Amino acid sequence: MKFSQFFMPTLKETPADAEVISHQLMLRAGYIRKLATGIFSWLPMGLKVLQKVESIVRQEMNRAGALEVLLPGVQPAEIWESSGRWTFYGKELLRFQDRHNHNYCLGPTHEEVITDIARREIRSYRDMPVNLYQIQNKFRDEVRPRFGIMRAREFLMKDAYSFDVNDDASAKSYWNMHAAYSRIFTRLGLKFKVVEADSGAIGGSFSHEFMVLAKSGEDLIASCPACDYAANVEKASFQAPPMPSFNPQLLKEINKLSTPGIRTIEELASFLNKPASAFAKTLIYLADGKPLAAMVRGDRELNEIKLKNLLNAADLVLAAPNAIFELTGAPQGFSGPLNLAMPVYVDSELASMPFLIVGGNAKDLHLEGFNITRDLPQATVASLRLVAEGDSCPKCGRVFTFARGIEVGHIFRLGTKYSAAMGAEYLNQEGESKPMVMGCYGIGVSRIVAAAIEQGNDENGIILPPAIAPFTIVVMPMSLEGKPFDTALDIYERLLAQGVEAAFDDRDLRPGNKFKDSELVGIPYRLVVGAKGLEKNQVELKDRARGETIWLSLDSAFEHILGLLKI
Amino acid sequence: MKFSQFFMPTLKETPADAEVISHQLMLRAGYIRKLATGIFSWLPMGLKVLQKVESIVRQEMNRAGALEVLLPGVQPAEIWESSGRWTFYGKELLRFQDRHNHNYCLGPTHEEVITDIARREIRSYRDMPVNLYQIQNKFRDEVRPRFGIMRAREFLMKDAYSFDVNDDASAKSYWNMHAAYSRIFTRLGLKFKVVEADSGAIGGSFSHEFMVLAKSGEDLIASCPACDYAANVEKASFQAPPMPSFNPQLLKEINKLSTPGIRTIEELASFLNKPASAFAKTLIYLADGKPLAAMVRGDRELNEIKLKNLLNAADLVLAAPNAIFELTGAPQGFSGPLNLAMPVYVDSELASMPFLIVGGNAKDLHLEGFNITRDLPQATVASLRLVAEGDSCPKCGRVFTFARGIEVGHIFRLGTKYSAAMGAEYLNQEGESKPMVMGCYGIGVSRIVAAAIEQGNDENGIILPPAIAPFTIVVMPMSLEGKPFDTALDIYERLLAQGVEAAFDDRDLRPGNKFKDSELVGIPYRLVVGAKGLEKNQVELKDRARGETIWLSLDSAFEHILGLLKI
Repeated sequence: MKFSQFFMPTLKETPADAEVISHQLMLRAGYIRKLATGIFSWLPMGLKVLQKVESIVRQEMNRAGALEVLLPGVQPAEIWESSGRWTFYGKELLRFQDRHNHNYCLGPTHEEVITDIARREIRSYRDMPVNLYQIQNKFRDEVRPRFGIMRAREFLMKDAYSFDVNDDASAKSYWNMHAAYSRIFTRLGLKFKVVEADSGAIGGSFSHEFMVLAKSGEDLIASCPACDYAANVEKASFQAPPMPSFNPQLLKEINKLSTPGIRTIEELASFLNKPASAFAKTLIYLADGKPLAAMVRGDRELNEIKLKNLLNAADLVLAAPNAIFELTGAPQGFSGPLNLAMPVYVDSELASMPFLIVGGNAKDLHLEGFNITRDLPQATVASLRLVAEGDSCPKCGRVFTFARGIEVGHIFRLGTKYSAAMGAEYLNQEGESKPMVMGCYGIGVSRIVAAAIEQGNDENGIILPPAIAPFTIVVMPMSLEGKPFDTALDIYERLLAQGVEAAFDDRDLRPGNKFKDSELVGIPYRLVVGAKGLEKNQVELKDRARGETIWLSLDSAFEHILGLLKI
Repeated sequence: MKFSQFFMPTLKETPADAEVISHQLMLRAGYIRKLATGIFSWLPMGLKVLQKVESIVRQEMNRAGALEVLLPGVQPAEIWESSGRWTFYGKELLRFQDRHNHNYCLGPTHEEVITDIARREIRSYRDMPVNLYQIQNKFRDEVRPRFGIMRAREFLMKDAYSFDVNDDASAKSYWNMHAAYSRIFTRLGLKFKVVEADSGAIGGSFSHEFMVLAKSGEDLIASCPACDYAANVEKASFQAPPMPSFNPQLLKEINKLSTPGIRTIEELASFLNKPASAFAKTLIYLADGKPLAAMVRGDRELNEIKLKNLLNAADLVLAAPNAIFELTGAPQGFSGPLNLAMPVYVDSELASMPFLIVGGNAKDLHLEGFNITRDLPQATVASLRLVAEGDSCPKCGRVFTFARGIEVGHIFRLGTKYSAAMGAEYLNQEGESKPMVMGCYGIGVSRIVAAAIEQGNDENGIILPPAIAPFTIVVMPMSLEGKPFDTALDIYERLLAQGVEAAFDDRDLRPGNKFKDSELVGIPYRLVVGAKGLEKNQVELKDRARGETIWLSLDSAFEHILGLLKI
């Protein structure tokens, strides 16, 4: 591509309304333009990156035996009613009526459409396994779209759905996708982690997230430096550090503390000049409508998944402030374990602590000297908290390391949730009708572009792996005529002939501006051909990621570049 | 692709609700499934065809120097308000509100979005020419979606938009697209015609349609068998056959005819037992609100474009029945040229006819013996009718042939319609601000699949050119084990290794069903490997389009097939 014939509106200034670096750089590099809140146009430079990601995803899905389909973006209400989600799904499901007043929505996901196809077309156990996927635009009407492409309303997704005869076969389909995803992210050239994840409202026995590692990632990952265990902290299992044995001599009397208007752990720690670990938080929940209290140390977070599993509850929500007042007799911020008319669940870590500061179930009151064993013998003690610094791998015991990541892929086992609801059944070998066992597998194709930029960038702009860079190399003559131009053009055309995705910057701009553009848009290699170098029969090659510049002899430059690009 | 691992639900019966052959066959062949009215899912077999069409379109657009972008499907009301089309566009524009009650629509076309990008990013004459295109899903809320993919509500389109400094440059961009489109339809392997077309409401000085020829086509095309002139009959210029010279001796008296309740030409022809060509139709129009009458022979159609151009009118509509009554004193069906208080325009063909039967401007009354020259000297005589059988090419005079076609591409010159309305201006060499001159260029990508099937089919199913067939060849062993299977598998794998898109039908079905499927889905070649043939060292190759079967020696079969496919 000759840049004089390309459309690449780059910006010098950082756009004011772009919060995260990938959003800023995608605007500055002319990858995207905003059309409306959370809705973006892809310009040629950005679309090249998007299409390369798409192409790798497609190739590996095909290689894994998945079959590509293309499902509609506009979906009728009827199929969402048949799965029960027309009313259950929140406002992210954008509902509207057509000219004949029939109800439709913009597809945020396609379980209903694909299950509808399966229930019509898959009749027998002989027709499975089937894994159908598509790469298609989704729309989710997020309440607060932000971070550009990272959390857009309209976005490009790869979604796949597997249909199997039973759980074992479905597990096989699941691990087949797990392997395909690992190949995809390896080929994309990104640093990533596969982590155990919460399967959330979708349900199913297990689930993995694929995380692109980046300091700016929204998700926190605990991973073992020794074995392959890694998990989203929301879900991670762990071994806690050994607890000190209980020493009855350390017990104290319970004392009342006046804490006027002091509600949060932070405020308490500051007011009483104690570390957050000296406190216990008491959280009031409703599990399937019934109240309970759950306690974790002041510097810990409760793991709601663990609590939900422990309770075997379908629904678990924090009680609202007025419910807390009714149940504890005190406003929010003063809940404590004593004299509560509900079961109390206590994180194991608290059980060995000789004394704690807890809420007093009265306005402006806390208690110190509280001990679980002595004062709350009826409590259920279990591991209830999220993983934290110092915890160890549940498999091999090595202390975890923590990293931030951006979720770009998620695989789920759905079981028979949709097939049972929508009547997607098949005849087994015995001639009996059985619901199909499903899995679903998503990749945020457009999100990967943003995540790759969050992972790869510096003060000069975007740094992308060659596999997904808009161009692999830009050849730049230092003048638009004479020997530098002719030599550069010749190298450019020879690279093209070898199948290299080369660009030729023949724009009538100052070299400094061209240099800046090539770094901003994330082209891995830049070859500069100037008169001075040519006097010594040399050209200059810059490696964007390493920041290194080397001089190459003109005679060997072409072969050297092909070698670098492994062509 | 091994068919045992493919998803290809074919149907034996013709679905009852599919009217046209392409819709019937696309359902039967497992290309598509209906999700809702005018909304379809593409299954793997159909998607392969769609993607091949898409790929050829993309390659030729890139080759023509157009740059690919990807614009949103959901568009905010604001940009449609800035072009004036938010209120002007009909109900095909599906409007809705998001969760924050902001107005949006589903993009039926993208002039607004692209002009918005141009007005922000194109500053100078140096930035042009630019031609931006996308291949993206459109939604048009048709009042009566029908014919399957042919007139769906959600459909895949390639739309391109060119921006130029002036009319001459814009014409160059236009003809560049004209050439690219011709290459595209040639490569697709379809019989097509490029025809002059009406530029309709979009305006602009000229416009061409690309028509796939098919007997079932909605459009009628007049084309010259000698030169390259071809046009949609709605727009075609022509030379009428020479008219007999006027012979005053043939004149008759005007006589009243009682025609109770007889209004249409068909009814009159039957009632009076005369050919339709003996009558003249008098049509009452409003041109920019002012009434006029227009006359054509009873067996002809008025060409509204010609009349509009003759009148230099912005708006031309047929008068409603109550307006006709007020203007002529008679109900619809009895309008005639005598004693009308409005100008009368007469098609040239009528001027040489000695006597005509016309309406009498009174209920149940017609007149015979009417002569234009004698009875209507004040009339304007001009060519006003549509082309018809017997007319000749306006360029070279050869008598036209007529064919039916399906519009799959349309190119327009837009001029400054959108750039002026939306303020898309650039600075010219003199530093003056000028509106960009635009063109727009559409291809119905999904519609091409249906049109190709309308063009290519027989009683056994779909016949597609190899360039867009789902697979080029299917290799079929007559048994699922032993030498036929091993030999077939070996040939299949060698074809794959040569880059042939081969399929291998290893399904556990009767050969007859497999034969039927291969013909139904439109695979151009079928290679059958059976035990009997192998005894004579032979395999059987069937050409789907020609219906011919030949026996090949096993040793030369592979080379023969590669030769056929020109690999």
